[in-house]
Amino acid sequence: MILTVTLNVALDVTYQVDALVPGAAHRVRTVVERPGGKGLNVARVLHALGEPVIATGLVGGAAGAKARDLLETRHAFVEIADESRRTVVVSDGSDATGFWEPGPLVTAEEWAEFVARYRGLVAVARVVVLSGSLPRGVPADAYAQLVTIAREREVPTVLDTSGEPLTLALAAGPDVIKPNAEELAEAMRGGATPTDRPGADGGARTTAHPDPGAPTGGQPAYDGDRIATAGLAHIVECAEALRTAGARAVLASRGPDGMLAVTADGRWRAAPPAPVAGNPTGAGDSAVAAVARGLAYQKEWPWILADAVALSASAVLAPEAGAFDSIAYRGFRRAVTSQEL
Amino acid sequence: MILTVTLNVALDVTYQVDALVPGAAHRVRTVVERPGGKGLNVARVLHALGEPVIATGLVGGAAGAKARDLLETRHAFVEIADESRRTVVVSDGSDATGFWEPGPLVTAEEWAEFVARYRGLVAVARVVVLSGSLPRGVPADAYAQLVTIAREREVPTVLDTSGEPLTLALAAGPDVIKPNAEELAEAMRGGATPTDRPGADGGARTTAHPDPGAPTGGQPAYDGDRIATAGLAHIVECAEALRTAGARAVLASRGPDGMLAVTADGRWRAAPPAPVAGNPTGAGDSAVAAVARGLAYQKEWPWILADAVALSASAVLAPEAGAFDSIAYRGFRRAVTSQEL
Repeated sequence: MILTVTLNVALDVTYQVDALVPGAAHRVRTVVERPGGKGLNVARVLHALGEPVIATGLVGGAAGAKARDLLETRHAFVEIADESRRTVVVSDGSDATGFWEPGPLVTAEEWAEFVARYRGLVAVARVVVLSGSLPRGVPADAYAQLVTIAREREVPTVLDTSGEPLTLALAAGPDVIKPNAEELAEAMRGGATPTDRPGADGGARTTAHPDPGAPTGGQPAYDGDRIATAGLAHIVECAEALRTAGARAVLASRGPDGMLAVTADGRWRAAPPAPVAGNPTGAGDSAVAAVARGLAYQKEWPWILADAVALSASAVLAPEAGAFDSIAYRGFRRAVTSQEL
Repeated sequence: MILTVTLNVALDVTYQVDALVPGAAHRVRTVVERPGGKGLNVARVLHALGEPVIATGLVGGAAGAKARDLLETRHAFVEIADESRRTVVVSDGSDATGFWEPGPLVTAEEWAEFVARYRGLVAVARVVVLSGSLPRGVPADAYAQLVTIAREREVPTVLDTSGEPLTLALAAGPDVIKPNAEELAEAMRGGATPTDRPGADGGARTTAHPDPGAPTGGQPAYDGDRIATAGLAHIVECAEALRTAGARAVLASRGPDGMLAVTADGRWRAAPPAPVAGNPTGAGDSAVAAVARGLAYQKEWPWILADAVALSASAVLAPEAGAFDSIAYRGFRRAVTSQEL
């Protein structure tokens, strides 16, 4: 069983409108609600792959209950008093505009209850996935604590977060981290510039949030243009610095240009055979799902990297985060190979 | 006790963002939730005036439960299986952009249950207020039915709706209807062009929804510019036509230019002493609250009209719908007088 941890669960709400006009009143044509938060996307992808998975984390209020109840996977969440956030994406066919509510406030007792629950689940997990931002009240070193607990049990961890929670967790020795180029650079500086954007159609816009704790959960970051322009050598340099800081392996995403694995066993790159147009939201979570599965089956890095690129590319072809095009996946899996650097 | 009926209850959600940029991701700074739907605004104003009030209507799901629970008045709602709508207004300080979810689908059984509940409440009400749009599944002649039931009990009714629900209810003989100029014209044509806009700062924009059942509830229409340009004589002509169609009195709002009462006892106009700048959302609901209270105390029309204008103007000074500035209200009450036409 792969355990996914989502501390900042979201209810992702998509509003379809005719055309978004600032200052106007809009009739919403359709309302679609989905479980959100990066960890839930990972859990959904693993579930679709037929992998046994349990989703845990913190849920609160009506939004949290709904996100949990919409989840088709097994789950074991701790309930909190405050309300989980909603993410509202307004789509008018050509553009997607996102509104991220602030996350809930978690009490010390709730966090302690979660840690106890997590200890029990880790005991029976083959891999632990830790994804997304931390809600207020959860200690900044939360992921450091959770990585440490997993290591005590010798359960490998995949950590996908940014900013201070990432920086503080490095010393605990996560087995894999999955930054994009910007997160890599930020983590080296010890700063925090999480990025997020709702799923638009091509990855042309990226909005940087200036403060830590930005919504890295609901609609996970895609790292299109910026990352493509970052040089390979620079990415490797950053990744090695993060390995020196404690991460055992770094899976660096390069957006449409694929991914890079910088590990103790070597360095590899892999990319889709051709540019993939679609919805990049959740592509990174699919890559994390691939890595978690690879670790569960003790695959080698070239296999894991190629699988992560293939699953990620097929996620771009799916209309929503947490899903992938299974036919395209089989094709990409044959077409993508890892190349040693 | 004044009974307010809100069939299309909303949970009004306001998102504060730094600046609304279509296509971008926005961090929501604050989330404020309030009970919404015109009838709930009326109930809140009456409650703030110290008047005994019971709010009834239909609520469903998490949004409906929250709207009801946030209400400080007594209430007796019928629960429905489908979820009450949310209205999301994104405010960036200079502009307000609204998103109205579609209302719930109401079953025939739920409607029948409501009518039974309503019969019981009408029996002990002094005045009934019927406000807002109808959710799907509720018969188009719903207000006609509810007016008829109230008339059988000799309980006066104030009806504030638009389009077909208004047109169909006229023959049942509501005691007061409160259209704006546009609704007046539409009702005469037997068509439907409800208007709605979120609370912006000056009433400069009005967005017309082309179809019936548009969201007249959550953030009620203000009728600023358009109505100001409509001639007095034309408004009187339209109002008289609606009286011929069955309404006993017509309170026509003229936005910043005040209001007009066209009744069997005469015709009056009243206006605030000077233009009032602020948030016009909910101003019409305050006028309806004033009328309901006036009918409950069997006041004369000049008193009611002046009170409606004063309460409406003091509502413009309050930051949210369903509230009014009580100090300003006392001042306006002294300053506003009704003038016979």
